[in-house]
Amino acid sequence: MNSKLQWLRNKMSSLDLQGIIISNPINIKYLTNIDAEGTLLLTRKENIYITDGRYIEQVHTILTLFDEIIVYDVKDISKDDYENFFMFCENVGFEENYITYAQYKEYIRKYKINNFVETENIIEKQRMIKDEEEISNIRKASEITDNCFSYILTYIKPGMTEKQIADEIDEYFKQRTEGLAFETIVASGENTSKPHAVPTDRKIQEKDIITIDMGCKINGYCSDMTRTFFVGEVPEYVRPVYNLVLKNQIQTGESYKDGASTRQLTKLVENDFKLNGYDLIHSIGHGVGLQIHEAPYISYRSDAMLRENMVVTNEPGIYIPGKFGVRIEDTAQITKFGCINLTKSEKNYIII
Amino acid sequence: MNSKLQWLRNKMSSLDLQGIIISNPINIKYLTNIDAEGTLLLTRKENIYITDGRYIEQVHTILTLFDEIIVYDVKDISKDDYENFFMFCENVGFEENYITYAQYKEYIRKYKINNFVETENIIEKQRMIKDEEEISNIRKASEITDNCFSYILTYIKPGMTEKQIADEIDEYFKQRTEGLAFETIVASGENTSKPHAVPTDRKIQEKDIITIDMGCKINGYCSDMTRTFFVGEVPEYVRPVYNLVLKNQIQTGESYKDGASTRQLTKLVENDFKLNGYDLIHSIGHGVGLQIHEAPYISYRSDAMLRENMVVTNEPGIYIPGKFGVRIEDTAQITKFGCINLTKSEKNYIII
Repeated sequence: MNSKLQWLRNKMSSLDLQGIIISNPINIKYLTNIDAEGTLLLTRKENIYITDGRYIEQVHTILTLFDEIIVYDVKDISKDDYENFFMFCENVGFEENYITYAQYKEYIRKYKINNFVETENIIEKQRMIKDEEEISNIRKASEITDNCFSYILTYIKPGMTEKQIADEIDEYFKQRTEGLAFETIVASGENTSKPHAVPTDRKIQEKDIITIDMGCKINGYCSDMTRTFFVGEVPEYVRPVYNLVLKNQIQTGESYKDGASTRQLTKLVENDFKLNGYDLIHSIGHGVGLQIHEAPYISYRSDAMLRENMVVTNEPGIYIPGKFGVRIEDTAQITKFGCINLTKSEKNYIII
Repeated sequence: MNSKLQWLRNKMSSLDLQGIIISNPINIKYLTNIDAEGTLLLTRKENIYITDGRYIEQVHTILTLFDEIIVYDVKDISKDDYENFFMFCENVGFEENYITYAQYKEYIRKYKINNFVETENIIEKQRMIKDEEEISNIRKASEITDNCFSYILTYIKPGMTEKQIADEIDEYFKQRTEGLAFETIVASGENTSKPHAVPTDRKIQEKDIITIDMGCKINGYCSDMTRTFFVGEVPEYVRPVYNLVLKNQIQTGESYKDGASTRQLTKLVENDFKLNGYDLIHSIGHGVGLQIHEAPYISYRSDAMLRENMVVTNEPGIYIPGKFGVRIEDTAQITKFGCINLTKSEKNYIII
């Protein structure tokens, strides 16, 4: 059995769960590497994956004997089979933040479950801490993101549209990776004032400010990087904002380490922005893994602590509505004594 | 108030619901045309949409006074406001097939709900029957899908990869529509044996069999079409399978009409496949609308009847593991006396 399933079995026994039903496909991929539609059951004796005819073949190409997972085609499972899976299980766990109310009722009926127990995101919490292989995937995705950024700086010319640049980035990623980690953001001029800008037909002009937020996927794992840069020169009115964002991005990176409080990290940035007359309008970071946004969230609504081998973004930004915005973002691995940026592109003024 | 919200209010009163919470964004888009993150409440007196700062501006550009929807920013709503929304409501409906078990518990607490009632997909059921405007959107999306297919037949040449062909389809749709209805499938050679194949770097060869499954979106509404075709010639061993699939696809189309039983339609195909030594491994169709897969599902697990102005796919397929597969799919509008195919591409042997 792989180490992640083994971890879950240990966790179950510490929680007095004799069985568990995993329905969230991201959690199933995390635990088993299976990327399909189906349900994972850990019963007293067995690990069972239930899927349907569309995926049986594909699932068998992923699993080996070592995985110790029995694959069922849903159409071969009888009413009795369902009732037997969790026989003699006092407590069976479920993902209360994933399954619907209707599924909850249906599972209890179908599996004849005695005591169906909320599991409070145990798998999502474990997913926050990455193992060496997971970090290696994110590192590769980050390297390709850096390379893509270097390339795109040479590609962009005044007259090109934001969409054209986004397409070029997408193509770069599609040729080298499993694809985009999220929809690429290319914003120029006043469009940079929208944190979630969608690429438009606006053409790049001389003296423009440009923000690009991009990432790709390797073996399911994401990268995430943002840079704000300039055409020809850095406008005087942008300099103080850029400097303030960069200063905070660097200071935050210096504070990222095992034990740091996400709320306090956020407060520090917010206070410095406020002192200079600006608001912090989004969280300063989030976990990155099989999902582009996952726990922990680094905001003042969160009470998480950073822990060794979390991989999180560091992305303060300032946005002046209708005028311009600046965001600088790295993906970083947390260590005991600091953090290691996995994205390494230049952060001082970049002029193309 | 628009006709869809008016319909829902009438439905609520027939179900003795004094309030309802709509959380599924697709249902919210269907009822209000709002395409954002938020929650729609129908209370005794008002229609309320709760969203956050990211969407307020966009939502206001969509709504008019005629809609009679009051928009709240979630950060302006107090604990008392939440408790007042459904005051004096005996029964409040919720979408048991959309909200998680955790949300269900949270809603009851936050809104102080007396009797929280499962609404058994009332909106999804209504969405099955399309009005003229919805059909017109699907018809447009289907036309562009046909055009894309004609174009792609001239584009494909031996030596190209499946990914390259999928990218060209994606680009065609992106330039002419709101984008893809789902991830385009381009499968060639033995990859056609996987119903949900993902495009690979496999290169198209002489005498290849190719399956393409694709669709786009117009005003949120999807199209869905599959064709299986050939490079140079139709291999002898494929002919009986292709002919059997096509025969069943045509016969199914001839049986699609108001009152037809989805289970019986499926049985007919399954029996004919079995008689010839093949299995039916997926349902033969599904509804198409704001979602690419929606009710009704045409399978033997479903007991639905086709009804006038449903829009559904007709897509029997046979898959021989490790060898090849054939699927032929149209999107069709159900009428009183038959069905109208909205996708109209050639179905007899297509050779490029």
